[in-house]
Amino acid sequence: MKKFINRPENVVEEMLEGFVKANAHKVRRLTTERVLVRTDAPVKGKVGIVTGGGSGHKPAFIGYIGKGLVDAVAVGDIFAAPPVQRVYEAIKAVDGGRGVLLCLGNYSGDVMNFGMAAELAQAEGIPIESVIVNDDVASSPKERMDNRRGVAGEVILWKVVGALAEEGADLPKMKEVGTRAVFNTRSLGVAHTPCIMPSSGKPSFEIGEDEMEIGVGHHGEPGIKRMKMMSADEVTEFMTLKVIEDLPFRSGDEVTVLINGLGSTSLLEMYICFRKVAQILADHSIKIHRTYIGEFFTSMEMGGFSVTLTKMDDELKRLMDAPCDGVHFIQH
Amino acid sequence: MKKFINRPENVVEEMLEGFVKANAHKVRRLTTERVLVRTDAPVKGKVGIVTGGGSGHKPAFIGYIGKGLVDAVAVGDIFAAPPVQRVYEAIKAVDGGRGVLLCLGNYSGDVMNFGMAAELAQAEGIPIESVIVNDDVASSPKERMDNRRGVAGEVILWKVVGALAEEGADLPKMKEVGTRAVFNTRSLGVAHTPCIMPSSGKPSFEIGEDEMEIGVGHHGEPGIKRMKMMSADEVTEFMTLKVIEDLPFRSGDEVTVLINGLGSTSLLEMYICFRKVAQILADHSIKIHRTYIGEFFTSMEMGGFSVTLTKMDDELKRLMDAPCDGVHFIQH
Repeated sequence: MKKFINRPENVVEEMLEGFVKANAHKVRRLTTERVLVRTDAPVKGKVGIVTGGGSGHKPAFIGYIGKGLVDAVAVGDIFAAPPVQRVYEAIKAVDGGRGVLLCLGNYSGDVMNFGMAAELAQAEGIPIESVIVNDDVASSPKERMDNRRGVAGEVILWKVVGALAEEGADLPKMKEVGTRAVFNTRSLGVAHTPCIMPSSGKPSFEIGEDEMEIGVGHHGEPGIKRMKMMSADEVTEFMTLKVIEDLPFRSGDEVTVLINGLGSTSLLEMYICFRKVAQILADHSIKIHRTYIGEFFTSMEMGGFSVTLTKMDDELKRLMDAPCDGVHFIQH
Repeated sequence: MKKFINRPENVVEEMLEGFVKANAHKVRRLTTERVLVRTDAPVKGKVGIVTGGGSGHKPAFIGYIGKGLVDAVAVGDIFAAPPVQRVYEAIKAVDGGRGVLLCLGNYSGDVMNFGMAAELAQAEGIPIESVIVNDDVASSPKERMDNRRGVAGEVILWKVVGALAEEGADLPKMKEVGTRAVFNTRSLGVAHTPCIMPSSGKPSFEIGEDEMEIGVGHHGEPGIKRMKMMSADEVTEFMTLKVIEDLPFRSGDEVTVLINGLGSTSLLEMYICFRKVAQILADHSIKIHRTYIGEFFTSMEMGGFSVTLTKMDDELKRLMDAPCDGVHFIQH
């Protein structure tokens, strides 16, 4: 296994140690649990934002802690949901008196554990709302959207609700706008190379030397179509059209575009693919409000990328444009 | 070849098209040459900063265009120096009346072409100074530092002189401080997986299934030692000690640390390695002023990372801490 790690069972703990050491001006770790919070948490009078999930998706989740983004992350093991107690401690650590919004991807373990933590917190009088991200159009038909996985679109949710919280919005408002942002967000990914699991040394999925798979999940879950490698333009067109027709995005819409690298795919390739996305959007008379290109939500060294579109309205545009100061997501 | 590209000969052109489209609020392209500049270039009364080199190192070089960083990039083909004319046009485009500083890595093609472009510009009355980066301790013994390659340390140079230019410094001052920053900067890399050249489909170097090479260059140049894969702590210790003893960095020094991913090595791994760097620095009573961890100067999808240390003084600390607003390097 060609990875720079020590003992596989220590990967998350050692990574956290390095992360907190490097970013002590922005994050601190709770003494009780594997939870990282903003240094100034709880921020009095601001709705707290808690997210979390498995490790191995860096810069997600902990790279998004910071002003204008999330307040706390409950850290799970590699590709594993954080336990209930951890989410509960995260909630308590960021409650500034106006309640806490939970942001999570639509995975059964996360949904269950965040749900139970919410109940514990509510029993203590902390108001809680949740927004569950299900942007991956490949993971289930549109008629069963509740079964769809959350992927890179979660970054859009953090940005939007993070900005809203800094503005002083209350919890119901954040739930409403966050839910709308998620509904307006659709993603589709492609991968040609798996990541290697540190624990087993095994790849997250098997794939041929000249193959790629459209719709592979962030943990190597099966996609919708396995095919021979295509050109950048061909695969980008296939994916972008699927995303556009899903909402559907229509002529006259404005969108934020997120091209997310899954790990080993270079920025060079992502910009080539974005060039095609921009052409297709122009052909559909869909205007680009803002573009993000880079590694925002990875699967360690998986090879591939995803295309995310979020339909904007005036409120979402203002929130996307607001400054933020996360560890790995900074915007002036 | 598992890359998302179209025709290999169009890789740089299509990447640039996507890049300019995505970042039109920060960069524009000259109509005459393959040169990108800050949208507001030339900035009147500010010393201009030109850098450049081969493509394939993204976010370097073009991701560092912006306020507090560089003004223009002369873009070369994959791993190839930009031609003289291109550097010359870049200089002319950013000359705001106080001269232009050229920042380049120590590669023969870059040194020759930037040098000839400098002569052309000087002949037209534009004051020019150059700072050549040679931070790679693996590429030549200390006695022949002039033969050393430039690697990730160039990012430190851009940050320092970029901040200085915004403060209104003159060209001799920028040459002086830039030269000091480069002298104070030492790097060493390791790679276990080559990148694939888009033109040939061939790997940039050959290496065994369980091997890594210390000191590999950004283009796959041979390193100083090939060995079996070691643990993160072992390889990090080997590299960090080599970097420390080279300057040498001494007890009581303050440093900026840059852990740079070469392409497919995950942030998870980089944080595990940084944990060890921090321990070693503490053991040597060397204080960390600032830490950067991520992909700052890659070789497409090469697997590996580098450790860079820069010895700080009060002036360098102020310049490292100054805000910047590059395309892929933003600091509040």
